[in-house]
Amino acid sequence: MTAAASRAAAWPVITLTTDFGPGSPYVAAIKAALLAGCPEATLVDISHAVSASDLESAGFVLWAGTRHFSPGSVHLAVVDPGVGTERRPVAVQLGHSFWVAPDNGLLSMLLRESPHEPEAVELRRPEAASPTFEGRDLFAPAAAALAAGQRLRALGQPLAGLVRLDQPSPRVLWVDGFGNLVTSLKPPVGGVKVGPVSVRRAGRTYGAVAPGELFFYTGSMGFVEIGVRNGRADLLLGAEPGPLVQPLP
Amino acid sequence: MTAAASRAAAWPVITLTTDFGPGSPYVAAIKAALLAGCPEATLVDISHAVSASDLESAGFVLWAGTRHFSPGSVHLAVVDPGVGTERRPVAVQLGHSFWVAPDNGLLSMLLRESPHEPEAVELRRPEAASPTFEGRDLFAPAAAALAAGQRLRALGQPLAGLVRLDQPSPRVLWVDGFGNLVTSLKPPVGGVKVGPVSVRRAGRTYGAVAPGELFFYTGSMGFVEIGVRNGRADLLLGAEPGPLVQPLP
Amino acid sequence: MTAAASRAAAWPVITLTTDFGPGSPYVAAIKAALLAGCPEATLVDISHAVSASDLESAGFVLWAGTRHFSPGSVHLAVVDPGVGTERRPVAVQLGHSFWVAPDNGLLSMLLRESPHEPEAVELRRPEAASPTFEGRDLFAPAAAALAAGQRLRALGQPLAGLVRLDQPSPRVLWVDGFGNLVTSLKPPVGGVKVGPVSVRRAGRTYGAVAPGELFFYTGSMGFVEIGVRNGRADLLLGAEPGPLVQPLP
Repeated sequence: MTAAASRAAAWPVITLTTDFGPGSPYVAAIKAALLAGCPEATLVDISHAVSASDLESAGFVLWAGTRHFSPGSVHLAVVDPGVGTERRPVAVQLGHSFWVAPDNGLLSMLLRESPHEPEAVELRRPEAASPTFEGRDLFAPAAAALAAGQRLRALGQPLAGLVRLDQPSPRVLWVDGFGNLVTSLKPPVGGVKVGPVSVRRAGRTYGAVAPGELFFYTGSMGFVEIGVRNGRADLLLGAEPGPLVQPLP
Repeated sequence: MTAAASRAAAWPVITLTTDFGPGSPYVAAIKAALLAGCPEATLVDISHAVSASDLESAGFVLWAGTRHFSPGSVHLAVVDPGVGTERRPVAVQLGHSFWVAPDNGLLSMLLRESPHEPEAVELRRPEAASPTFEGRDLFAPAAAALAAGQRLRALGQPLAGLVRLDQPSPRVLWVDGFGNLVTSLKPPVGGVKVGPVSVRRAGRTYGAVAPGELFFYTGSMGFVEIGVRNGRADLLLGAEPGPLVQPLP
Repeated sequence: MTAAASRAAAWPVITLTTDFGPGSPYVAAIKAALLAGCPEATLVDISHAVSASDLESAGFVLWAGTRHFSPGSVHLAVVDPGVGTERRPVAVQLGHSFWVAPDNGLLSMLLRESPHEPEAVELRRPEAASPTFEGRDLFAPAAAALAAGQRLRALGQPLAGLVRLDQPSPRVLWVDGFGNLVTSLKPPVGGVKVGPVSVRRAGRTYGAVAPGELFFYTGSMGFVEIGVRNGRADLLLGAEPGPLVQPLP
């Protein structure tokens, strides 16, 4: 174990990403299960409003929100349009960190962007698990066990072939709180076409362009983003997560 | 003290349920008071958007959000349309856990559903308490004291006869983030009537019914719920918390 | 170091106030940086929805949300319309607590209301800091260092002359979750004029006035507020943060 992993182990972190909505007692029930299994954990909410109908966008928020946490951290993601239907509950190790989620493609972006080979197990279902609330009864206890130091292999049978969504066509992955469009394009590009609008002005920061002007830049996450100084690109372009974009030469 | 209670005591948990709204500095002020009294506490937000005008629904969220926490946990609830008017501030022990709240009926569902007899005290008012912010000056210090290990009796005079709302007529208690209606009915029922619509299709999970079909099921909280696969029952039925429902034979 | 500061040091607290929006992965990235630098910290969200275009109102939420925390606490505020443009990143000590923020006027109210003389440094920029995400790469590491016990002077060069917004004309600073208007007026006043409406009824608590009646009172934060029993003053008066108010004799 590295020194960083050892230090983190003393202060385990579990993050939560769900589509339950803010203020849901279901989230509280999951936290109760996490703290029952690992009372010393620090719990961090990533988002409880990711989209269940757009797993690519939900997976982006999960990737963006969890990738900076220290080795040893555990990331619970319950975004599960198919709860109760057939899909495997899994725990996945990438490097020294862990993700616990339904195997429905939600982890695709993490798997694509990680330099590590995933190690995965299919979670064993506790007998008493509610068929309608696996977040509390199946996923949370597994995440707590990992945070408390249990090994991945102790949670279930090894598993190859996680579900991966196809690499999407270039698109808007997420619109941030300021209205900037985060695209799935990586630099370098000569510009970005969003619907009928071609954005060809490049800028390094908001300060580099004129107020009201659309520009593209490489965001802090390494993707090409579209913004406008003193304004909202999403309102100017009518864009939300989903729309296809095109790189310009 | 049980082993579980002793372990929990090392990592005290205080949950918060209020109607202050997300991002309110009042919630922050309450947390400051909690951490001043019990710096080692783990704070868990249940909801800051419960309804002050529907204490039955607010009490449902409080019950659903707090019931899974380990023995020794403390649950602060400040939903108080009558702040500054006459109602008693109380701390209540049910089993090994504690609820601190105004005695206005908010705890009714917890009292109804708990297998334990409540033990209650009326909180002593600190002299410096602001008449308009008892959450910070009265309730939070009491919750912190309990989390830090103080006994219930140390906080005030024993009290019998907590305010209890009448058991409500069958109704929708809460609409979850997916649009499912959580009713106050308990199984078994042969169906549920919501307004003019009779839902007679029973399902165990979403996967058991056809897309778009309304069905009822026993939810993870033990109540009869109404959902629709790949849709929102609240939109289909025009329902929100409150409307009466009827069990069908 | 006082006894209180020493006790707090064992359980460091870092609060967060931003305009990133709830559920933003940027907030999660900042928390990852905070926990990497100070794994034992308790993180408290004040608000992630303060107004970037009204720094006086944002500064009010920051003041109201952070002022009650114990000595030794660290308050990170990233509300930064000018990210990437020229303004200094600073850490400021007031008494025994710390605020880390861009020097753009956001701290004005704290500086005005504090009994302490500020001690400030301009933060040294790490070489690898992203030009578009200083919250994660510059501000969070500084806040974590302070929470972990580092001295203010270790973070950068001392600095005099923090940016201070002009004391605003009497105005509505904030509208709370119940619709009460928090003005910048301090008692005593004989009444308050909001737009065309003069509110002359004084009350100590909601219980003191008739349902539906507008009244003013001294709120828990020491400012004059306007409320209405069993109603929302913001809806009655059409007011939101910003509108000027006038004290009445």
